[in-house]
Amino acid sequence: MELVRRDAALIYVGKARDQHTMPQEEINALLARLALEGKRVLRLKGGDPFIFGRGGEEIETLMAHDVPFQVVPGITAASGVSSYAGIPLTHRDYAQTCLFTTGHLKNGTLDLDWDAMMRPNQTLVIYMGLIGLAGICTQLMAKGMSVDMPVAIVQQGTTQRQRVVTGTIETIAEQVKQAQLKAPCLTIIGEVVLLRGKLNWFNPLQ
Amino acid sequence: MELVRRDAALIYVGKARDQHTMPQEEINALLARLALEGKRVLRLKGGDPFIFGRGGEEIETLMAHDVPFQVVPGITAASGVSSYAGIPLTHRDYAQTCLFTTGHLKNGTLDLDWDAMMRPNQTLVIYMGLIGLAGICTQLMAKGMSVDMPVAIVQQGTTQRQRVVTGTIETIAEQVKQAQLKAPCLTIIGEVVLLRGKLNWFNPLQ
Repeated sequence: MELVRRDAALIYVGKARDQHTMPQEEINALLARLALEGKRVLRLKGGDPFIFGRGGEEIETLMAHDVPFQVVPGITAASGVSSYAGIPLTHRDYAQTCLFTTGHLKNGTLDLDWDAMMRPNQTLVIYMGLIGLAGICTQLMAKGMSVDMPVAIVQQGTTQRQRVVTGTIETIAEQVKQAQLKAPCLTIIGEVVLLRGKLNWFNPLQ
Repeated sequence: MELVRRDAALIYVGKARDQHTMPQEEINALLARLALEGKRVLRLKGGDPFIFGRGGEEIETLMAHDVPFQVVPGITAASGVSSYAGIPLTHRDYAQTCLFTTGHLKNGTLDLDWDAMMRPNQTLVIYMGLIGLAGICTQLMAKGMSVDMPVAIVQQGTTQRQRVVTGTIETIAEQVKQAQLKAPCLTIIGEVVLLRGKLNWFNPLQ
């Protein structure tokens, strides 16, 4: 934000769970309206616009209004957070694939593809808050995932306030509660989490 | 590379298929050796060091030699290439998860988790060259993937020499041959590929 020109008008449209400052449809429309007024518009996002970023919907609206634009890819949370947590998402010996998913509550229950989340030699990154964590772990164990499967929960990853709690799918929900972690958090499940034991290079000031 | 200081010594360790300038183990050792000689070393990579980047192995070596370092996350090929190809990896209507994988030939056959690659509402990104493409498509169809499943192959994505060929898993191998695509390429499989029809915003000069 320090790089934004001082005379720019700043419009905050950020989201927190259950507290959307502006619905996505309004954001889409706003981008087109401001551009059509002749303004030069920057839509700044955390992460990558095309990975859980709704960027596709935004540029679809711009296309429909013949607004020229360019997309600048970003560091998706899985990359940024795993780097600063010392957890490679792929590693020759532990994981040859990685799966990014986000949990949605449909009618109060988690709507996730459990079988896809269970594959061997895979790192699973869940882009969602702590709200569904206990349920996800319970479900994965019920489906047969080893209770010893390593898990890391990273709060405010990449920042000086980063906090990391590691455990197993059996223990992590209680650990997170004890540690009083708060959103925003990212969940990493897989053998690669063990590498943090020796690859933890980032030590926040606090 | 324009930003590298002019008096820096440049050592190329890049890789192309079957033509590794320097084996990974030597790269790891070289980083440690130069640093221990008192030099300030930058290991510059394309993409993200922790997603198919072997960054974990490199910092493991640095840790073992007590060399202090920091990791700067990068734009992984799936993000960069999909952005410039106008293909959002996730989209509310088409894909709620994305799977990144890379194909290895083991004893001459493809060693991939076919079931994981078949999940519905998922975008599959394959970090590998064209060498295995026909085999992958044949295998996915044999496993029951719809022959109409959209596929995009992107050559030299994000650059002015970017070329994109889209088709289906039934047609793409022949199309790529006709178009004479060459490495480096990235493969994207999933319904989101259809969005390129309206979201294709990047037009290279050529």
